[in-house]
Amino acid sequence: MIYERVALIGLGLIASSMFWAMRRGDVAGHVTGYARSAETRDTARRIGLCDTVCDDLVETVKDADLIVLAVPVGAMGAVAEAIGPHLKPGATVTDVGSVKQTVIDTVGPHLPAGVHFVAAHPMAGTEHSGPESGFATLFDNRWTLIVPTEQSDGDSVTQLERYWHALGANTERMDPDHHDLVCAVVSHIPHLIAYTMVGVADDLRRVSDSEVIKFSAAGFRDFTRIAASDPTMWRDVFLTNKDATIEMLGRFTEELFALQRAIRTSDGEQLHAYFTRTRAIRRGILEAGQDTDAPDFGRAKVER
Amino acid sequence: MIYERVALIGLGLIASSMFWAMRRGDVAGHVTGYARSAETRDTARRIGLCDTVCDDLVETVKDADLIVLAVPVGAMGAVAEAIGPHLKPGATVTDVGSVKQTVIDTVGPHLPAGVHFVAAHPMAGTEHSGPESGFATLFDNRWTLIVPTEQSDGDSVTQLERYWHALGANTERMDPDHHDLVCAVVSHIPHLIAYTMVGVADDLRRVSDSEVIKFSAAGFRDFTRIAASDPTMWRDVFLTNKDATIEMLGRFTEELFALQRAIRTSDGEQLHAYFTRTRAIRRGILEAGQDTDAPDFGRAKVER
Repeated sequence: MIYERVALIGLGLIASSMFWAMRRGDVAGHVTGYARSAETRDTARRIGLCDTVCDDLVETVKDADLIVLAVPVGAMGAVAEAIGPHLKPGATVTDVGSVKQTVIDTVGPHLPAGVHFVAAHPMAGTEHSGPESGFATLFDNRWTLIVPTEQSDGDSVTQLERYWHALGANTERMDPDHHDLVCAVVSHIPHLIAYTMVGVADDLRRVSDSEVIKFSAAGFRDFTRIAASDPTMWRDVFLTNKDATIEMLGRFTEELFALQRAIRTSDGEQLHAYFTRTRAIRRGILEAGQDTDAPDFGRAKVER
Repeated sequence: MIYERVALIGLGLIASSMFWAMRRGDVAGHVTGYARSAETRDTARRIGLCDTVCDDLVETVKDADLIVLAVPVGAMGAVAEAIGPHLKPGATVTDVGSVKQTVIDTVGPHLPAGVHFVAAHPMAGTEHSGPESGFATLFDNRWTLIVPTEQSDGDSVTQLERYWHALGANTERMDPDHHDLVCAVVSHIPHLIAYTMVGVADDLRRVSDSEVIKFSAAGFRDFTRIAASDPTMWRDVFLTNKDATIEMLGRFTEELFALQRAIRTSDGEQLHAYFTRTRAIRRGILEAGQDTDAPDFGRAKVER
């Protein structure tokens, strides 16, 4: 057992997956859970999510050895402020937010001396949200980034890493600034672009929504999948990772304009060279085990 | 049987899938195939792709009732010129290119009177290419757009539609301009954006390729999948659908800048409203049967 008592604050996709992953092995003794909405708490009780679902935030964290903040990034400061005075000395507080510098800045000041804060970010998810969307294998062979600060206690960090390994994940330590830049590139900007493309398609008078929907198999469907993610979570991501997002958007539009120019001037060589180069990254991802080689656009099994 | 003799010119993902789909039922009597590269022809013979693989283009189309041009859009004019004088009177020529006005303009003039040209575009594919990437179910419940011109013979059009239905696809008729606009939105621009995003990530000095690869599960992976598609095919798509591509890119960057502005000015309401709206299109796609609701980001089965 890695933690005797674990408290999950917020019972969405990530926290519910953490619970089911904890239940696969001897990871935690007792797990309490809290969600702001009574409906979510009722659902959690109905499906057996958490050993105890509490109606009260303070009751949830009482005696907990690990407290996991699994609420949108914009809500974390308020939660930390509410629970801070009630935490057990020696407890570890962590989070699962997609942005790290903001979380460290807003959560840290509310925690009393003797309570350890270690920020973390599991790089896994689906386009679904809510307490019923979680599943035990979500983190298997995915990466959880551990983002300690200079004040983080070494033993707390190591224990949290062991916890994530027990949930199936690999871990890597990263400093907050670098984390926020890496995530802007691999996650935040791709999401913003997908949202934008879906919005453009929806706006277009000359192409009907039903045409967009019927013919989506050819590339657009992956965008809609990304763009179906939780709006509140993503709003908070962009508002709290503003600098890295805007910097990367600048790089993206610069590059897009260069390709647009190649199209306008019929520079086939430049286009071909560019499209060839991007294949190598795809191969790297397959080799790194982060995806399978099975054809996915058709969402069909290979059969002859 | 819908056609006695079918000739497939170009033996990549689409043509090989068409062959295996024809083999599922009584769709065609005899299928010949041709590929420019001897290596592709050898592979085709080894895996039993086509009843006869020909080393000569003219021999391939001799006596054929249906000739399918399944080469990159930029190569179709030359192929049509080479086969035009050798086509059987009454034969139908079709294609599977992603752009239609250009194909109609470049192929049509090379075909003799008495040979019917009906352009078509199966909206299905995967990120894989080559003769070994095809599978029989690729077109099942997908859409093939049939793009007749004013000169197209009515019976030829109807017969080609019956052929695509036999391969598992639904069909819809569309005029060339509208086809090229719809495809710019649902396919061409999404591909260009995915290529761009992968290129930006690859260029970035401060984030290593191995970081991009390791942490790709969180949205970026779908982009790399799209960007792994065949470079020659996509170069030709952008060069031949230039007007619609550039118009839609303009709309896309306009919209992206609006979201960037909302981020810069911390307009959370606008972001939330935008991200909420895009969920509806996703729901529409699920309801239209063009995707499944299974969580895909994690590429893992739902298990508790």
